[in-house]
Amino acid sequence: MFVAMNRFRINKGHEDAFEEVWRSRDSRLKDVQGFQSFHLLKGAFDEDSQTTLYASHTIWESQEHFSAWTRSEHFRAAHKSARDTTGMYAGPPVFEGFSSVLAE
Amino acid sequence: MFVAMNRFRINKGHEDAFEEVWRSRDSRLKDVQGFQSFHLLKGAFDEDSQTTLYASHTIWESQEHFSAWTRSEHFRAAHKSARDTTGMYAGPPVFEGFSSVLAE
Repeated sequence: MFVAMNRFRINKGHEDAFEEVWRSRDSRLKDVQGFQSFHLLKGAFDEDSQTTLYASHTIWESQEHFSAWTRSEHFRAAHKSARDTTGMYAGPPVFEGFSSVLAE
Repeated sequence: MFVAMNRFRINKGHEDAFEEVWRSRDSRLKDVQGFQSFHLLKGAFDEDSQTTLYASHTIWESQEHFSAWTRSEHFRAAHKSARDTTGMYAGPPVFEGFSSVLAE
């Protein structure tokens, strides 16, 4: 199992618009080999930076399946957005990939 | 769905011992109401800090189920360790809780 996460810091007041970007995208993940599940996760609000932590959280059968997806047409389609995201992001997304070493 | 993650920075050379701490713990998570899955995840090695990112990754039916577990005997049992962890941690664990806002 491989978990691909992208962490986003979203400025206060832009939370709904950020979620709408994800809701309206054309992901077609279910058609991709090795895809298991996707969740958009909402974390805590940080008082200091006035941002909310979000994470896209995708589970793949293996890291190889994830890598193949990032080189595909499906990937380009999922990351194409016509929406205005001005002021939404407090910084660039931070990618983290994880492999499972123990399961219960 | 609620995802509870604890992030750990493990010093180089202590990776196997850290994984063994998790392998040998008495978690009994499967007996806990609202528990869905647990994975210990291994992320990337960071050259600057010479540490590996790990995350414990537990999925719960709801945040309320997770909170109830943290107040239980099961929780205390799972976090009791007789092992020597000197030099293992580059810092304290960082907790992050997430609620799912979108699923595919």
